[in-house]
Amino acid sequence: MLRVAIVGASGYTGVELARLLTGHPHVELTAATSRKYAGKPLASVFPSLRGCTDLLCENLGPEELLDRADFFFTAVPHGTAMDIVPALLAAGRKVVDLSADYRLRDLTVYEQWYQDHSSADLFQEAVYGLPELYRQQIRDCRLLANPGCYPTSVILGLAPLLRENLIDPGTLVIDSKSGTSGAGRAANVATLFCEVTDGFRPYKVGGTHRHIPEMEQELSLLAGSTVRISFTPHLLPVSRGILSTMYAACRTPLACEAVQALYEEAYGDEPFVRVCAAGTLPATQHVRGSNFCDIAVTVDSRTNRVIVTSAIDNIVKGASGQAVQNMNLMNDFEETCGLTGLPFFP
Amino acid sequence: MLRVAIVGASGYTGVELARLLTGHPHVELTAATSRKYAGKPLASVFPSLRGCTDLLCENLGPEELLDRADFFFTAVPHGTAMDIVPALLAAGRKVVDLSADYRLRDLTVYEQWYQDHSSADLFQEAVYGLPELYRQQIRDCRLLANPGCYPTSVILGLAPLLRENLIDPGTLVIDSKSGTSGAGRAANVATLFCEVTDGFRPYKVGGTHRHIPEMEQELSLLAGSTVRISFTPHLLPVSRGILSTMYAACRTPLACEAVQALYEEAYGDEPFVRVCAAGTLPATQHVRGSNFCDIAVTVDSRTNRVIVTSAIDNIVKGASGQAVQNMNLMNDFEETCGLTGLPFFP
Amino acid sequence: MLRVAIVGASGYTGVELARLLTGHPHVELTAATSRKYAGKPLASVFPSLRGCTDLLCENLGPEELLDRADFFFTAVPHGTAMDIVPALLAAGRKVVDLSADYRLRDLTVYEQWYQDHSSADLFQEAVYGLPELYRQQIRDCRLLANPGCYPTSVILGLAPLLRENLIDPGTLVIDSKSGTSGAGRAANVATLFCEVTDGFRPYKVGGTHRHIPEMEQELSLLAGSTVRISFTPHLLPVSRGILSTMYAACRTPLACEAVQALYEEAYGDEPFVRVCAAGTLPATQHVRGSNFCDIAVTVDSRTNRVIVTSAIDNIVKGASGQAVQNMNLMNDFEETCGLTGLPFFP
Amino acid sequence: MLRVAIVGASGYTGVELARLLTGHPHVELTAATSRKYAGKPLASVFPSLRGCTDLLCENLGPEELLDRADFFFTAVPHGTAMDIVPALLAAGRKVVDLSADYRLRDLTVYEQWYQDHSSADLFQEAVYGLPELYRQQIRDCRLLANPGCYPTSVILGLAPLLRENLIDPGTLVIDSKSGTSGAGRAANVATLFCEVTDGFRPYKVGGTHRHIPEMEQELSLLAGSTVRISFTPHLLPVSRGILSTMYAACRTPLACEAVQALYEEAYGDEPFVRVCAAGTLPATQHVRGSNFCDIAVTVDSRTNRVIVTSAIDNIVKGASGQAVQNMNLMNDFEETCGLTGLPFFP
Repeated sequence: MLRVAIVGASGYTGVELARLLTGHPHVELTAATSRKYAGKPLASVFPSLRGCTDLLCENLGPEELLDRADFFFTAVPHGTAMDIVPALLAAGRKVVDLSADYRLRDLTVYEQWYQDHSSADLFQEAVYGLPELYRQQIRDCRLLANPGCYPTSVILGLAPLLRENLIDPGTLVIDSKSGTSGAGRAANVATLFCEVTDGFRPYKVGGTHRHIPEMEQELSLLAGSTVRISFTPHLLPVSRGILSTMYAACRTPLACEAVQALYEEAYGDEPFVRVCAAGTLPATQHVRGSNFCDIAVTVDSRTNRVIVTSAIDNIVKGASGQAVQNMNLMNDFEETCGLTGLPFFP
Repeated sequence: MLRVAIVGASGYTGVELARLLTGHPHVELTAATSRKYAGKPLASVFPSLRGCTDLLCENLGPEELLDRADFFFTAVPHGTAMDIVPALLAAGRKVVDLSADYRLRDLTVYEQWYQDHSSADLFQEAVYGLPELYRQQIRDCRLLANPGCYPTSVILGLAPLLRENLIDPGTLVIDSKSGTSGAGRAANVATLFCEVTDGFRPYKVGGTHRHIPEMEQELSLLAGSTVRISFTPHLLPVSRGILSTMYAACRTPLACEAVQALYEEAYGDEPFVRVCAAGTLPATQHVRGSNFCDIAVTVDSRTNRVIVTSAIDNIVKGASGQAVQNMNLMNDFEETCGLTGLPFFP
Repeated sequence: MLRVAIVGASGYTGVELARLLTGHPHVELTAATSRKYAGKPLASVFPSLRGCTDLLCENLGPEELLDRADFFFTAVPHGTAMDIVPALLAAGRKVVDLSADYRLRDLTVYEQWYQDHSSADLFQEAVYGLPELYRQQIRDCRLLANPGCYPTSVILGLAPLLRENLIDPGTLVIDSKSGTSGAGRAANVATLFCEVTDGFRPYKVGGTHRHIPEMEQELSLLAGSTVRISFTPHLLPVSRGILSTMYAACRTPLACEAVQALYEEAYGDEPFVRVCAAGTLPATQHVRGSNFCDIAVTVDSRTNRVIVTSAIDNIVKGASGQAVQNMNLMNDFEETCGLTGLPFFP
Repeated sequence: MLRVAIVGASGYTGVELARLLTGHPHVELTAATSRKYAGKPLASVFPSLRGCTDLLCENLGPEELLDRADFFFTAVPHGTAMDIVPALLAAGRKVVDLSADYRLRDLTVYEQWYQDHSSADLFQEAVYGLPELYRQQIRDCRLLANPGCYPTSVILGLAPLLRENLIDPGTLVIDSKSGTSGAGRAANVATLFCEVTDGFRPYKVGGTHRHIPEMEQELSLLAGSTVRISFTPHLLPVSRGILSTMYAACRTPLACEAVQALYEEAYGDEPFVRVCAAGTLPATQHVRGSNFCDIAVTVDSRTNRVIVTSAIDNIVKGASGQAVQNMNLMNDFEETCGLTGLPFFP
């Protein structure tokens, strides 16, 4: 049994990691840290775990952490992760970092969009944890940068088209909608029930969301050239789910059947990507609670644009589920281990 | 007091008309038709009206209708409206038609997107009922084609930019999200609570929604050239509200301040359009229950695109409220009469 | 025009007062206080008010308050209200207090359930603001204690049965469910969207909710004897609405028709109480946004119990709407003035 | 591998059975029947199953059914089940019936609350499938009557108190609230999204819900005397979840600690009942998607009543999960097999 710790267990990605890891046959959850809830049972912070775990939240320093586990998930904010990760690696531990601290390959870009970085030397070895793109590198890495939620839905949605050079990346417009769990569990007027329910709104309009450089980095690598995107996030009155609608001009007119075949080919062997049958579309309620990414590709021949829609559960494939998938790869477990739960509907 | 009838009162636009007209000082609601609920009190179909109206739903033929009112709202499906409207006009009544039957000016386009038309001769005199564009013609008309919900949010959002020729209309991408009341009140598995709640999904992706020709007609008139748009509708787990996010390439680089000023100028005198202060954004929960359209305009200088976001309540400004606004204009009532209720939040 | 101030305008009852008073023909909203948002436009705190008011939030001391208005709504927490109200009264102003500070008639009870009280001498003259019970006293008072939300739904629901001595008050079981706006607008993990949506839970089970003494006081007065109730509140995943389900043993077997007639008689002249027709039931979505209280009374002959169900919008009839109704009475305005908006559905 | 069929797979209990059985290590889902969707892939009826099953919906007669499976779940309406079950049993198959057709032990009661019965002779051998009460009988039976959703939450909630004769059953008041999935997947105006969301309402008030005789039957057996209950169901704007709040007078004053200990003792070995720690309460969002029943017991010493609150997921422990639990027992599988998924929160 692999001894696993969750650093930062009191957020929504933390409880989702706890849910998934508790059911995982090859790991034992041996520590869960939380400054705010130190000393309280994790199951009292999240009564959904009532009776399922005896773990206490603890406020552990770096040394104590090392004693407690062999594999670490850091589910803390960016800026905090960089203070914890280097010591874990130095002590020979493997880490899946769910923050943004090791996702970007260019320090200048990181510092422009985030803040100063104290361990940029690790950028070289960190692997961007999208298994559909980097499976082999993930298997071999010790520091995994778990992708952002929006980027997961977007990169998986666009990869086949960009790889084949079928669209003009300069025309990419990406309109994404996220469930409110993406905003975290901090007490905040803007995410109170009454502020969010029965409503819908955009935020960070105009190219200012921090997931933009992450998407542009990966889309550029796929396209083989620098890609700039228009990206607008929106807040949905649902707990879980991201749906991204992506538009781009076709380089030459495309046939629906051809792009459908391209996607089915590209993702035919992927355990967690489901290409929607022609004429059907993804919906967040059909991936809820699962590690699936559902993708549909449609051609609008009136405007010569291709429209890709993709849906994930933002805290599973968009965070904790993908983190477990990466842990599986990094430890030679079956890739789907602990992630075989089907979406729950309704 | 103007005697007013609602033809097709048992849908969501019907009950909203009843709500608004019951509080209107210059009209008396004298008839409400419904085949399905004929003989039942309207307040038993919609208990929200309990104690507020004694009106019975009736199944009235054209002759009976004429006896009962002087002004008509036809809130029936397209195809049905064209069977009712000509007789009302022939008898000298004025009509606000909430269906799509008289919105398009080109019969070929209507028949391509909808069906055969039995009174296309009325296309010439029907006025497209967006007061912000056609106020004077509305005042003088007897047949008013009340705009679709999506088109209202989109046309108001884009009019200033197109009129000033600031964007390339060939690059227009419109991503819209609608509350479920837009799907009507028919019994239908797809709009059951459990199918919609806690979820989000696109529909009619790829240029197939019937509001597209309506938007293209009006946007083309504003642009002075033929406009083709990419338009994707989505279904929100809210009752009321449409939010449209619109993207277009700027013809030349635009300054935020300039486009902000353009919008404030364009809509400064409009009673029902609220331009969001720079740095703020619309949200459906902030227009809920009101006739307001809130609009924000943002420039993304990274990609040289302008992004317009607009929010309406789809059954008020997107249907019944706008219908009352048009009735006011057609009868020389104060334009805002009966529509002064503020948005309710939360 | 009556100059009116809202003390504590940044909560949900505050914005609802602003919404209702902005549309009131006889008052002018002249001040809105908020410590937290002092200096910010009220319409930036609540964008639903965008374009509808120029009022700034201010942090005003007692002297400044007096200059600014002639009538006051204190929408601050209990304990804070008692620090503000005496000075306003002393200066000859009238006050509707939405807190619990002047609802109880017995200081011992207040101090047992709440805290020490600094102006208990005002208990004698404060009038409990349920117009259906105390209309004449309200007209004549200068300090009005606006009822709690749960008590409004419960007292209106039970008054006819208790007055007629038809039930055994010792058997009263009251199961109430409230929308989340009742929990206020403070940043709080427990009322975040993700904690509340798609869920339901009881709280303060076992006779510990502070509205219990308020209900018992008024129910006892109606019954003419001391009443003790079992009361359980629950949190609904809706913004607005309270539904109370009340059970009591009939003293002697009751006929449905007789209790129905009793309720129709009791409330026949009340502008804001709607007795549901026999066989129909209240629902929070049918009173949403309105000042109505819908009530149904049912007899379960199998168990010889009567079951009363009542629905209100907790921030209208349960708070701000009732406060405006009381202001109307205290100023000889039409009782329904500013409150004629119908429920919005859907 | 046990070959298992779902008769009536196109409802919400059907898809939940499919979800649970797909992940069950000892069974193979070999048939799914649906008249309405015959010929369509089950995964096109429920896209959540996309890629997870190739099963087609079929319209199978009794003979065909027998060929296709060895174990049957009948998830069809009452009245229909009785037409199917006898033939399956006669052919030596075992059946878990999710309808009400075999839950009652008294034909007179069945016919009074439901309709005529065509195979009442099976009442004697049918076992009421609440494992916490009838585990041994379930192991040995071939016809299992799966409990109703409300009864599951209520019987588990009250069993310890009734068995110990601590409450007066004549005072039982049960106030239950159910998610909308309990109303099924039929097209119906009353359960459209816009009718349910942002609202709450009671239904079947006054002792008319068909689960009453089922609850009274089992509560009477537990109490050792005839029990009559007041029961009021309500409709929650959530997909999944039932919360029941139950009130009864204590026969003699009870100490909180004593009843807490009683419940912990009663359910200490149960894999799917979680007794909430003293001072904590159940919530539907904390059992969502799981087979748990969370129960809290509270004493209100002011009124000498005990209040029990219990929460389940109505389509897991209240239907399909409990059905799988029963299948496990009937086939000597581990009782928790296929049911170890933790609740998902948020």
